[in-house]
Amino acid sequence: MQYGKFRIEFKKIKDKYECIVVGAGPAGLTAAIYLARYNVDVVIISKSIGGKMILAPLIDDYPGLPEIPGTKLAEVFVNHVKKFGVPMIIGKTVVNVRKEGDLWCVELDSGERLCSYAVILAVGAERRKLGVPGEEEFIGKGVSYCATCDGPFFKDRIVAVVGGGNAALSSALYLSTIAKKVYLIHRRETFRAIPHYIEEVKKNPKIEVITNTVITGIIGDKKLTGVKVKNVTTNEEKILNVDGIFIEIGSEPPKEFLKSIGLELDEQGYIAVNPDMSTNLPGIFACGEVTGGRYKHRFEQIITAAAEGAIAAKSAYEYIIKVKKTL
Amino acid sequence: MQYGKFRIEFKKIKDKYECIVVGAGPAGLTAAIYLARYNVDVVIISKSIGGKMILAPLIDDYPGLPEIPGTKLAEVFVNHVKKFGVPMIIGKTVVNVRKEGDLWCVELDSGERLCSYAVILAVGAERRKLGVPGEEEFIGKGVSYCATCDGPFFKDRIVAVVGGGNAALSSALYLSTIAKKVYLIHRRETFRAIPHYIEEVKKNPKIEVITNTVITGIIGDKKLTGVKVKNVTTNEEKILNVDGIFIEIGSEPPKEFLKSIGLELDEQGYIAVNPDMSTNLPGIFACGEVTGGRYKHRFEQIITAAAEGAIAAKSAYEYIIKVKKTL
Repeated sequence: MQYGKFRIEFKKIKDKYECIVVGAGPAGLTAAIYLARYNVDVVIISKSIGGKMILAPLIDDYPGLPEIPGTKLAEVFVNHVKKFGVPMIIGKTVVNVRKEGDLWCVELDSGERLCSYAVILAVGAERRKLGVPGEEEFIGKGVSYCATCDGPFFKDRIVAVVGGGNAALSSALYLSTIAKKVYLIHRRETFRAIPHYIEEVKKNPKIEVITNTVITGIIGDKKLTGVKVKNVTTNEEKILNVDGIFIEIGSEPPKEFLKSIGLELDEQGYIAVNPDMSTNLPGIFACGEVTGGRYKHRFEQIITAAAEGAIAAKSAYEYIIKVKKTL
Repeated sequence: MQYGKFRIEFKKIKDKYECIVVGAGPAGLTAAIYLARYNVDVVIISKSIGGKMILAPLIDDYPGLPEIPGTKLAEVFVNHVKKFGVPMIIGKTVVNVRKEGDLWCVELDSGERLCSYAVILAVGAERRKLGVPGEEEFIGKGVSYCATCDGPFFKDRIVAVVGGGNAALSSALYLSTIAKKVYLIHRRETFRAIPHYIEEVKKNPKIEVITNTVITGIIGDKKLTGVKVKNVTTNEEKILNVDGIFIEIGSEPPKEFLKSIGLELDEQGYIAVNPDMSTNLPGIFACGEVTGGRYKHRFEQIITAAAEGAIAAKSAYEYIIKVKKTL
């Protein structure tokens, strides 16, 4: 089956594995690599492949693979997993995780049910929305959460990017190579992106920086034609004529899903993990962007997500050995 | 300058940087990549390049770069650092780290002195020795701590490997492709290596496994000719005729050096780090194998060392910004 850029060879799906990894971003894929090397019978379930890696036009901070497009980095991770023959169920969503006897069972939106001794949750976090009028209406008609994916549709057009972090600035820089003009709109005075991006943005003649400004609405007819903006210091409102808007204002975890499992969450709704990536539920481990808690330094990088995947795999492996002995 | 496999272009060394990274294994090199991206004026000082990566014949658990020789993985890390123009002082050892006013100053064995706002210690841990008669005497004459480095000298000879972890078993497997026969000697009944290695060792006709056995001495004349072994259950002693012995029994941190800086260490002598890789000394950060403490899951992998390097870099960057503002 061709799934986006990836060719996935489906193996026959069993109803029992030793470990189920939910999510196929850097954390989940690395967990699978480590579990396979531990000879654990593991399956990956994920609605998509590559996690947020595929949103990045160019990644230059994954050590050893400089200046690699995010989709390419996802591909080499997936190929590494495939080398070990780990089955992948892609395009399906886990809707329920429940303890049944000695096992943890996951239910998919398609109705299948798979059980295992241990589950590793590497489900990431969803992109945060602005929550303004017009946003939902114009998704796919000018509103985008992924410059890499949708940027090419805006050749020689005018676009806006909203946000002040690395994702926003790197998206603006990328879009400046395609679009005629890029507005970078940020609600604060200063950016929290790394200085390298800030400098590049400042010297880029195609990017116009608009600070202390929020988006109050998205307007258009069949397609998006503009965004309403408001300066938060002067309260002045105006309309910017743009063909597209890229919203890069962070992420949030799937709190309700996590709560339904019975997981302990931190105050932002991320899974509270111990240093070994175990959770409050024996047999459930977590890694990557979905994790939080007092032992975790929240700094969401591909390299840190991958490292957490390795640690979660080791902890799950040790848990599985122990549980199997006592069964 | 050619340093082993690596060509290092020396820049003129200054006496002040914003950050000094000590060590050039996966942790130190990743810290340098992240610091460079943060536009921090950083220098790497290390007695060697690549850390323990270069000891591994073949690495298959660094996500995205499957089946890569350790020396090659070190090379792509180093090239990633070089791309950012980070100066590297290689072949020199830091003998002293001391606070002087607002700066931390490091002294090299060659007499140079460099100062910076922050120091990241990524010095790793030394290979553990058996501590038996003959061990020191025959280093380089049959006693080795690095199968990758010295294995090729033992073509069609008989060698012993000591240890029970991944390093020992993977070295035995590698040596079996070169030597005529490999004894794998372990003091316990069972191995703590991953099942994959244990299975490979068991089915390898060139490897003879000897468990419950310790080495009591290393003998020879000009070159090593044998090892004295003792079965710890029967107390039986005998001599195995071998041409070489590879000692793979773990590592220990440079406790005395770390104590001399005033760093808080954990009970095994590793630097007690916080989740953000800060230490008890403001301005000193640590990452990789030299670190420990209650927030750290001790599982020493290339991917975890690299992730810690990224986290240490971010923390050092934030510290430097803060310190520079108050100066």
